[in-house]
Amino acid sequence: MNYTTQMDAAKKGITTKEMEIVAQKEKIDVNILKNLIANGKVVIPANKNHKSLNPEGIGEGLRTKINVNLGISKDCPNIEPEIEKVKKAIELKAEAIMDLSSFGKTEEFRKKIIELSPAMIGTVPIYDAVGFYDKELKDIKAKEFLDVVEKHAKDGVDFVTIHAGLTKRTCETFKKNKRLTNIVSRGGSLLFAWMELNNSENPFYEYYDELLDICEKYDVTLSLGDACRPGSINDSTDASQIEELIILGELTKRAWEKNVQVMIEGPGHMAINEIQANMLLEKKLCHGAPFYVLGPIVTDIAPGYDHITSAIGGTIAASSGADFLCYVTPAEHLRLPTLDDMKEGIIASKIAAHAADIAKGIKYAKDWDYEMSKARQNLDWEKMFKLCIDEEKARKFRNSSIPEHNDSCTMCGKMCSMRNMNKILEGKNINLLREDN
Amino acid sequence: MNYTTQMDAAKKGITTKEMEIVAQKEKIDVNILKNLIANGKVVIPANKNHKSLNPEGIGEGLRTKINVNLGISKDCPNIEPEIEKVKKAIELKAEAIMDLSSFGKTEEFRKKIIELSPAMIGTVPIYDAVGFYDKELKDIKAKEFLDVVEKHAKDGVDFVTIHAGLTKRTCETFKKNKRLTNIVSRGGSLLFAWMELNNSENPFYEYYDELLDICEKYDVTLSLGDACRPGSINDSTDASQIEELIILGELTKRAWEKNVQVMIEGPGHMAINEIQANMLLEKKLCHGAPFYVLGPIVTDIAPGYDHITSAIGGTIAASSGADFLCYVTPAEHLRLPTLDDMKEGIIASKIAAHAADIAKGIKYAKDWDYEMSKARQNLDWEKMFKLCIDEEKARKFRNSSIPEHNDSCTMCGKMCSMRNMNKILEGKNINLLREDN
Repeated sequence: MNYTTQMDAAKKGITTKEMEIVAQKEKIDVNILKNLIANGKVVIPANKNHKSLNPEGIGEGLRTKINVNLGISKDCPNIEPEIEKVKKAIELKAEAIMDLSSFGKTEEFRKKIIELSPAMIGTVPIYDAVGFYDKELKDIKAKEFLDVVEKHAKDGVDFVTIHAGLTKRTCETFKKNKRLTNIVSRGGSLLFAWMELNNSENPFYEYYDELLDICEKYDVTLSLGDACRPGSINDSTDASQIEELIILGELTKRAWEKNVQVMIEGPGHMAINEIQANMLLEKKLCHGAPFYVLGPIVTDIAPGYDHITSAIGGTIAASSGADFLCYVTPAEHLRLPTLDDMKEGIIASKIAAHAADIAKGIKYAKDWDYEMSKARQNLDWEKMFKLCIDEEKARKFRNSSIPEHNDSCTMCGKMCSMRNMNKILEGKNINLLREDN
Repeated sequence: MNYTTQMDAAKKGITTKEMEIVAQKEKIDVNILKNLIANGKVVIPANKNHKSLNPEGIGEGLRTKINVNLGISKDCPNIEPEIEKVKKAIELKAEAIMDLSSFGKTEEFRKKIIELSPAMIGTVPIYDAVGFYDKELKDIKAKEFLDVVEKHAKDGVDFVTIHAGLTKRTCETFKKNKRLTNIVSRGGSLLFAWMELNNSENPFYEYYDELLDICEKYDVTLSLGDACRPGSINDSTDASQIEELIILGELTKRAWEKNVQVMIEGPGHMAINEIQANMLLEKKLCHGAPFYVLGPIVTDIAPGYDHITSAIGGTIAASSGADFLCYVTPAEHLRLPTLDDMKEGIIASKIAAHAADIAKGIKYAKDWDYEMSKARQNLDWEKMFKLCIDEEKARKFRNSSIPEHNDSCTMCGKMCSMRNMNKILEGKNINLLREDN
């Protein structure tokens, strides 16, 4: 191959097979896509060692994508249920899966899912470090963190979350500007702990060039983590968050110089009136790099319903610039998600992504809605079911409550406006008391 | 009493006991509230015959309220399950309940719920007309529709939906500007049918003064229905919808001249990039009258999840001007909601209302989030549960998945960022492998 990464190829004017596939899926010209990749505005996370990948693009002008989190941990160490989740995520057409495994046979699990998944795979290598070395966090050496990244890269991971923006300077800002919920990013809090316990700079910041070399070699996309994302409505858009974002912007430019693809991770908990400004800030400070958001969750008070609070925030975020939504399940803040929780989370994220795609003018996004509403006006239930984002649930609901007239539903019965308008516009009468077929 | 309606009292400078209660609930000065009521920007739907009412205000500067729909119909004619829903809605603190009964013992049901409900009660009298007269729709005389309204008013209904804006002129506009999903408002489509079948003007428009007399007599708040609300993403913000809104604005002024309180009903299905403009249009064309929205549902493709599509739209709507959200349940477009569907719908609407209240700067709205996040940082699970919007579900989730450490949860276990940050900021070490209390 005469290129290293998708970005390197794009800069050299080479059209890769991944670009061709993505251009076709997105119904855009491959040269326009190539230009966006060369400028860092679109990424195609596609590790050279991920052979089963069906590539997707993330960024400006493309359909909003969603990510599903899963993985084994001390409280849930069995591989099998997590493999079931991977299969379900693929069946439900999630474009990305993050393996957040932190305990047990993480290597075996990672290799297995990379082998079977056409969806891109992401990891947070620091989660795996303690288990990888069987050492307490503070005893891990700076460069050892990089070795974990290299291991993941070699295994075929398409993107890695690295909290390289939590520098000593960011930590000072954090300490000077007290927060209600401190640092809620799991990886960010582990790094903060390591830095405090060792009185050292962030290893990913200190050895950033070495990190870029690893990413370049395998074409791993860097997902620059937001250690200081707000963990409560109270903490959003504060000094720590914005200071870190500035550093992520600097790191983005350094990555692009080595042709490493970059995404930026974003909030978090945030009132809806702040979301639009945050999307602008990311796009400006990080030079148009794709924005990957977790939520935003628009209120803190709804554990059990955070797939809804994040669908609200995600829709607004994606319609004002975010490109990639991390799903949130009803189990957020309470427990590891079950398979059912995962499904609810995926559907809620897909709704947010699609509603945003309509708003941001993605070509063809509205066609799906048009077909559904046409079927609805025609009382064509079979077609409606086939167009539902969750056909299974829609059929189950309707079958549980059979109406008097099989063209209507029990919500309105003979008062169905679709049914009655069709009759009246055809010049017919409607009978609400007597039978009328 | 030396006043007719709350608006009449406000204009005369009289402070009613309803105003006092609302001012206290909203933590605002009663004179400011009175002024808003006098100017039509706030309503207190409070029928003189609804003795069990615990009044609420709806409109500018007040907390966003939510409404729950229920009622008996041909497909579900039993009173008991619907009474259970009323009780559940009250328990979950819905501020309003609309009785949409269309068949069977509607009078008995209506009187029963008015007797037991501290929440305000609304109806759509035209739903009840066919059953009331036991006549086919087209055979009902214009003035007979008004008699149904008077019956409801006498029974103690606090607000009635009246589609008086669907005039002959609006119908012409509708016919000239073809829509994908025609008229989807149930009451609107019935009126359209009646007008077409009888070649007559809308009876509520023709006899609007008589209607106002009824509303004034009992202090029934007029909820001017949007017959032409869009029923698909395709149809939103079109000629029919906006033409009807202009007429509703004219009717608002006529109602205010007779001191009748008015709300305006709004969309519907709508892409999120159109919501803000629609809120502005309503507030301008209808002179600041409170806006009561059904949804907006931000995509057509998610039957089974329309509590989510409408929570997304409702949050954006309420944060940009809507004052009152009609709940939508997961059963929308598929069947009459069950008790469970109703609960999911209520919680989703309450999330939307609260998230919007934070964004629109309602005093004290954020305090709830602050307390929750403080409890979360303190790992105070009992306090968190008590602050949850649905304590029952949150407890159930956590109890189903017990973590190794009872201060964390199975999502992160010992990697809990709250737990670890607390330790590090206290100068302690963290052990992720070994036991550490």
